[in-house]
Amino acid sequence: MPLYFEDLAVGDTFEAGSYTVTKDEIIEFAEQFDPQPFHTDEVAARDSMFGELVASGLHTLCLSVRLFVTQFVNPDDGLANMGGLGMDNLRWHAPVTPGDTLSLEIEVVETSQSESRDDRGYVTLDRRVYVDDGDDPVLSIRSHNIVQRRDAE
Amino acid sequence: MPLYFEDLAVGDTFEAGSYTVTKDEIIEFAEQFDPQPFHTDEVAARDSMFGELVASGLHTLCLSVRLFVTQFVNPDDGLANMGGLGMDNLRWHAPVTPGDTLSLEIEVVETSQSESRDDRGYVTLDRRVYVDDGDDPVLSIRSHNIVQRRDAE
Repeated sequence: MPLYFEDLAVGDTFEAGSYTVTKDEIIEFAEQFDPQPFHTDEVAARDSMFGELVASGLHTLCLSVRLFVTQFVNPDDGLANMGGLGMDNLRWHAPVTPGDTLSLEIEVVETSQSESRDDRGYVTLDRRVYVDDGDDPVLSIRSHNIVQRRDAE
Repeated sequence: MPLYFEDLAVGDTFEAGSYTVTKDEIIEFAEQFDPQPFHTDEVAARDSMFGELVASGLHTLCLSVRLFVTQFVNPDDGLANMGGLGMDNLRWHAPVTPGDTLSLEIEVVETSQSESRDDRGYVTLDRRVYVDDGDDPVLSIRSHNIVQRRDAE
């Protein structure tokens, strides 16, 4: 049974899998969506602020959303997510480099019932991406999701 | 010559090209990064909150970053962007559907010199994505960029 709005409480925390990113993927993503030399060219990246090839921050965000959806939404007992309203406070705290293993942690920070529609509620989630089980996140973001209520089935 | 930190003033606005998104691209992106039925399956999408297949909001964001980089950063007279610190206030105001033509507008909303490093400054940009030259954006986001100063060359 899915995780409905009523099943979520502030402070609930979930682990949502992990994913190791390769150099080829970093370059391929960047060539498509963020073609800046420090994301696409190992040699040019040495002269950048980063000093080495780093993943596009947008790529790290996309990989975190993939973990969110595949590990936390799509399983049979996953979040009954209806859609997203937006995101806040996206911060890239440290660069991601080839071979890094990303893991995602999700924390419920706010819930409120919709006042106009009785089939849904609004849930605010803090999502944090860690590399190789480090103590500090490399990416953090707060998302605003629309979640189905149990009675709406 | 690139657009350096000193060349930017609050209120400056830039148009950054346009891009038409296809159904195949919407599905392909979503299968990779946001595999929810309303982004990957036309039939299942009819039963969703959206009533039709819609682009992942993450996809719209990625396409807006592609326009930002290819049209506003990478040209010879483009922004001397050193990297990004983060983004705020990401909002999806309306869904994007197959065949929509997205255009990007960029507005400088804040600039400040770095106090610790004389080669750079911080620039806050509001980025707005419009569909088919509509009056209201379908996506808006505020980005915090690090921009090279002219003397740092």
